[in-house]
Amino acid sequence: MTDLTLGELASAIAARKISALEATDACLERIARLDRRLRAFITLDADGARARARALDADLAGGRRRGPLHGVPLAYKDLCHVPGLPTSCGTRTPEYFTGAVECTAVARLTAAGAITLGKLNMTELALGPFGDNPHHGDVDNPWKAGHVSGGSSSGSGTAVAAGLAFGALGSDTGGSIRLPAACCGIVGLKPTYGRVSRAGAMPLSWSLDHLGPMTRSVRDAALMLEIVAGHDSRDATSSPRAVGPLVAALEAPVRGVRVALPENYYFDGVTPEVRAAVEHAARTLASLGADVRTLRLPDPAPMIDVCNILARSESSTIHARVARERPHELGPAVRARLEVGFHISAHDYLQAARLRARLTRAFVDEVFGEVDAILAPTIPEPAPALATVTAPPVEEIVRRMGRFSRLTRPFNGLGLPVLAVPAGFASDGRPLGLQIVGRPFDEASVLRLGHAWEHAADWRTRRPSL
Amino acid sequence: MTDLTLGELASAIAARKISALEATDACLERIARLDRRLRAFITLDADGARARARALDADLAGGRRRGPLHGVPLAYKDLCHVPGLPTSCGTRTPEYFTGAVECTAVARLTAAGAITLGKLNMTELALGPFGDNPHHGDVDNPWKAGHVSGGSSSGSGTAVAAGLAFGALGSDTGGSIRLPAACCGIVGLKPTYGRVSRAGAMPLSWSLDHLGPMTRSVRDAALMLEIVAGHDSRDATSSPRAVGPLVAALEAPVRGVRVALPENYYFDGVTPEVRAAVEHAARTLASLGADVRTLRLPDPAPMIDVCNILARSESSTIHARVARERPHELGPAVRARLEVGFHISAHDYLQAARLRARLTRAFVDEVFGEVDAILAPTIPEPAPALATVTAPPVEEIVRRMGRFSRLTRPFNGLGLPVLAVPAGFASDGRPLGLQIVGRPFDEASVLRLGHAWEHAADWRTRRPSL
Repeated sequence: MTDLTLGELASAIAARKISALEATDACLERIARLDRRLRAFITLDADGARARARALDADLAGGRRRGPLHGVPLAYKDLCHVPGLPTSCGTRTPEYFTGAVECTAVARLTAAGAITLGKLNMTELALGPFGDNPHHGDVDNPWKAGHVSGGSSSGSGTAVAAGLAFGALGSDTGGSIRLPAACCGIVGLKPTYGRVSRAGAMPLSWSLDHLGPMTRSVRDAALMLEIVAGHDSRDATSSPRAVGPLVAALEAPVRGVRVALPENYYFDGVTPEVRAAVEHAARTLASLGADVRTLRLPDPAPMIDVCNILARSESSTIHARVARERPHELGPAVRARLEVGFHISAHDYLQAARLRARLTRAFVDEVFGEVDAILAPTIPEPAPALATVTAPPVEEIVRRMGRFSRLTRPFNGLGLPVLAVPAGFASDGRPLGLQIVGRPFDEASVLRLGHAWEHAADWRTRRPSL
Repeated sequence: MTDLTLGELASAIAARKISALEATDACLERIARLDRRLRAFITLDADGARARARALDADLAGGRRRGPLHGVPLAYKDLCHVPGLPTSCGTRTPEYFTGAVECTAVARLTAAGAITLGKLNMTELALGPFGDNPHHGDVDNPWKAGHVSGGSSSGSGTAVAAGLAFGALGSDTGGSIRLPAACCGIVGLKPTYGRVSRAGAMPLSWSLDHLGPMTRSVRDAALMLEIVAGHDSRDATSSPRAVGPLVAALEAPVRGVRVALPENYYFDGVTPEVRAAVEHAARTLASLGADVRTLRLPDPAPMIDVCNILARSESSTIHARVARERPHELGPAVRARLEVGFHISAHDYLQAARLRARLTRAFVDEVFGEVDAILAPTIPEPAPALATVTAPPVEEIVRRMGRFSRLTRPFNGLGLPVLAVPAGFASDGRPLGLQIVGRPFDEASVLRLGHAWEHAADWRTRRPSL
């Protein structure tokens, strides 16, 4: 049963073929069996989930379906504040994020009928190295033991790939939804900046944070996004733009959609298998009628510099108290990264913010005048071994992370919607990943392209054997 | 004719009792006669204004009225970019603000039929001391020669009070609309942050800048605000909220409206005449049925600190090039103020931005749970003599400005709508001023209260004798 997609499960529950309690118990059994090794969960709320499942089953028996996710068990990155459960943010302090308002995205999923299984593992403050989780243990890769599952939403990636939950929320400041999606062979969507409220989620960088769905299919991502997207007065950066239909738009033909393969940067230093996988996806979309072409993109280097200044300044301010008063509670890499931020000037910060706006306008005008979407690899190589990414010194750990996330980070500064979707497997079975990047607020197009590619590909129903 | 309000003139033109050319020529004649002393204009576009007036008269003769301001001559603070005219921003460089997009607020007034007479004097970069304009001469006070007309929109205040234009745009980062309105005995409105687009206006502080009307009556301010308010995609801080009717709402009774007189801060150190004038206005509103009471307001000191950090960081970044490459082009006070901003850390800046949000939420919840509006003096004393404000040293000049603007600055941080309206005259004839502060986006209430007070007061039609 845990092989089903979220949408398939929701339909089966609505049709009374599976009960919410059966679905919940199936997840709980799988968690009990696998999570000692996978370490995807920080907090499991088995009793709460089962009680909620029973209530939802009773509702359905009484003819009341709460919404499109009625009875579907989900789990959330442990920086989303869910009333009644602790929010560690990957630190050793169970209630690190306190006094927070309820996470709007979780509240909307719950209102749509979802069940909360628990809170998912993540790197320390969404900032720590992927393979070095000093407080909650390293999340393991469900496809290949002893390998990273990406980060920082590593627990979300593994939980969804391993069938411990039918979908998850992650957050993405530099790639933290897309990297674990790619490492774990699932779908992750970083929406347009402002599309999904971040209210009630621990911030890492106000300017660059995005909350989004992580799922087993593109359709599931569209379904979750439809529910969590849209204006929220509790997040000042939340856009008032209306959310159009996403699931209903998936089946529209991709014929004539103009898709760019970047000529520069995005294939530099990627492994041959990664390049071949992305090119195969491009050919597949072309065979479906998409107008695929190569295009030189604006150099991402200045935007990456901008993102570094914004992220460092903001994360140091957000976590100033722990960084200054209780630094011993943090791992060395996080401590070092937070310390850097205190030495940035307001002038440099504001110049970065201005430059970001200018680079974004130029990118949107230049690129989306030519094409409707961009294809690029998500990760430059398959998920590396835990042992290799955590080899000291600290500077080298940070440098390795920077290299691994170099294909995702520019799009946080640009604020564009990006769908991370599987692109097949390396010869040794590790997943490969593809990013589909769209115009601001055009999540519909990236989902449509991802859906077309997913349905044409042979890996669609492949699950890790666990 | 130049004694008319903007609304009266617009009606007279619409009724073909006065032509746009007659109105324009009346202003130009008055400018020719008075502005050598008043120095309200930096750039006069007599030919452009007369050509436009003729075209508008021809339109009206052909039955085509462009909008509610058809044929009304206005003028704009010289930081609004108007195509074809230089934008000095009070500096010695005529084209200081170049490559800018057309000022949205001016474009909307023009589309409504207004005529541009020219660009109005201001302190250097909207940052220089009121009485020390090294490039364009000190603007004189139309009520009392040799006295300041406030700042930084000093030319706007004097032009409107002296009948050189029927209305003006000013900008307000710490009081720069309200202070000259008070010094010159006219009406000035600092709208809610986000209510009026700042696109095409030189920024001084992205966080604290507001653009707004300066007029001879409250009704004129409502009329101009209705035209310039509302969303503009070219200003990212522009609010998408709809603008309700303002002129039509002026006549609603003030009976039952809850109005606070502050118990703390806002009467500290003000002259007895200022206090008496504000209390008289409060009694007048009470006699009209308003529910006037005293109220302790949250201490403005932390918000003033916040505003200083935001304004200094942002203005230094905005003017970094001139401050670093050509500092000799700037007056000593502006140079000193810009230099300070380079030494603020991103951490302090971001903490200030967070604290601002928290203080604003607390203020709105606490105060506007109790009352609908606040009355306070605008300036602590009538317009001082030019000679006294410019006496060195520089530190003392800056300190004096700080004291003079201490009643207006908190509302820039709070982002609340504030109407500055005349409150009668000191015994020697200098104007006194009153601020009416409202809920976010509730310009309608402050305009309604200001209109009621204005119509009950005996100073309504008083003009300076020039």
